[in-house]
Amino acid sequence: LSDPLAIRSFKLIVAYDGTAYQGWQVQLDAPTIQAELQRALQTLTNESVRVTASGRTDAGVHALGQVVSFDSSTSHSPDTILRALNANLPHDIRVLEVEVAADGFHAIRDAVSKRYRYCIQDGGVADPFLRGLCWHLPQRMDEDALRAAANLLLGKHDFASYQAAGSPRASTVRTIFDFTVTRQSRELCDLIVMEIAADGFLYNMVRNLVGTLVEVGRGSRPIQWPHEVLTAKDRTLAGSTAPPHGLFLVAVEYVG
Amino acid sequence: LSDPLAIRSFKLIVAYDGTAYQGWQVQLDAPTIQAELQRALQTLTNESVRVTASGRTDAGVHALGQVVSFDSSTSHSPDTILRALNANLPHDIRVLEVEVAADGFHAIRDAVSKRYRYCIQDGGVADPFLRGLCWHLPQRMDEDALRAAANLLLGKHDFASYQAAGSPRASTVRTIFDFTVTRQSRELCDLIVMEIAADGFLYNMVRNLVGTLVEVGRGSRPIQWPHEVLTAKDRTLAGSTAPPHGLFLVAVEYVG
Repeated sequence: LSDPLAIRSFKLIVAYDGTAYQGWQVQLDAPTIQAELQRALQTLTNESVRVTASGRTDAGVHALGQVVSFDSSTSHSPDTILRALNANLPHDIRVLEVEVAADGFHAIRDAVSKRYRYCIQDGGVADPFLRGLCWHLPQRMDEDALRAAANLLLGKHDFASYQAAGSPRASTVRTIFDFTVTRQSRELCDLIVMEIAADGFLYNMVRNLVGTLVEVGRGSRPIQWPHEVLTAKDRTLAGSTAPPHGLFLVAVEYVG
Repeated sequence: LSDPLAIRSFKLIVAYDGTAYQGWQVQLDAPTIQAELQRALQTLTNESVRVTASGRTDAGVHALGQVVSFDSSTSHSPDTILRALNANLPHDIRVLEVEVAADGFHAIRDAVSKRYRYCIQDGGVADPFLRGLCWHLPQRMDEDALRAAANLLLGKHDFASYQAAGSPRASTVRTIFDFTVTRQSRELCDLIVMEIAADGFLYNMVRNLVGTLVEVGRGSRPIQWPHEVLTAKDRTLAGSTAPPHGLFLVAVEYVG
């Protein structure tokens, strides 16, 4: 058994359906993912544990592989922690993995890349099993046009045009490693699935990119337009912000 | 335009997530699929319309292709009815198709076969996006054993052993046309998906078959056991009834 007084750093992989939550961050009088995790950890450890996520997802945003760090003097094994947390958490939040991380591991500071997914049902009757899990648009999208427009955004750029207003960062330069657009046939509908991996994301960047790209997908704007918006570095030129419920944090990568 | 006084028979294809409902059939003081459809139809037609489903799904059971019939003197086109119903229904109930059927079309009486699906997540942490949409079992299932046991149930048999107690039918003989077992890899979990098509089903028949088959899948019973239970025609010999939330009515077939 480990020294019961030694503080260890833990890393969790967490999946959640964000539909019922006001996002990640603790708020007064509103259910949040962070509050649920901290409550479940306190039940297990009798410590007041503060958890940190790789990024604060907004209300309605989902995660398949959110990474969460915390320090604790608990002597429980990772496997016991996993089972106890899942026994104490609501069913729409699940801890998929628990491991002891390097001392001082920090889910925000140590992240080197993230991958997001955005799901759109284009056309047809809204799939009742995907309500809250995709953006339903009445028009059929041209996925080849979407893909061509996405390709023009690959690489290192100043994404100031795609940053939410009123959220200044020291630098608005980010590098997109991967930006894929695929059409998937589901039983009751078709989905357009966009995945974007980058070394970091500005606030609302994925939702602003998607809201701009769909103007291309529906034929209202040319393929070059999202790149023109990028080079203009002017938020007011971009499309609207896509709704939160189509967005999933897929995975976060760390060094080593 | 059709004669506004002529009564026409309509056929709807309806999908629903049954999680929030006390099943199909209208009940006092409880939300049901039938009640929601009748309310939406009344809003559209100003008639008190009674709708009939191919079968009454239980609380928590889902449908991908429930068939619903009703008679109405509405002069609206099928496309208008589809749009108006979906505008008036909750998002977890969607009308996928509306058509004018042969006069007197009746969703129960005219059905010639039905297909059900049952989904099991075997092992792993329960997928938070599939809560309410599959049965989560802690053990890994042997899908080859499940498939072999299912194959022995194909064909025309007396399924009295798999009928819920207290629900006598004139005949308990049914013919299973198709009974497949597949393992599907999802992003966060593995699923065992069973599909069963028959000329009709006794009450709780699919859930009783699944509850019996999983005893084979987990290695507690031999492959021949579900067939032995069948030939014994004794409900008390079968396994437990699988929970409703893994069950989906997939499709209903009609003559012509």
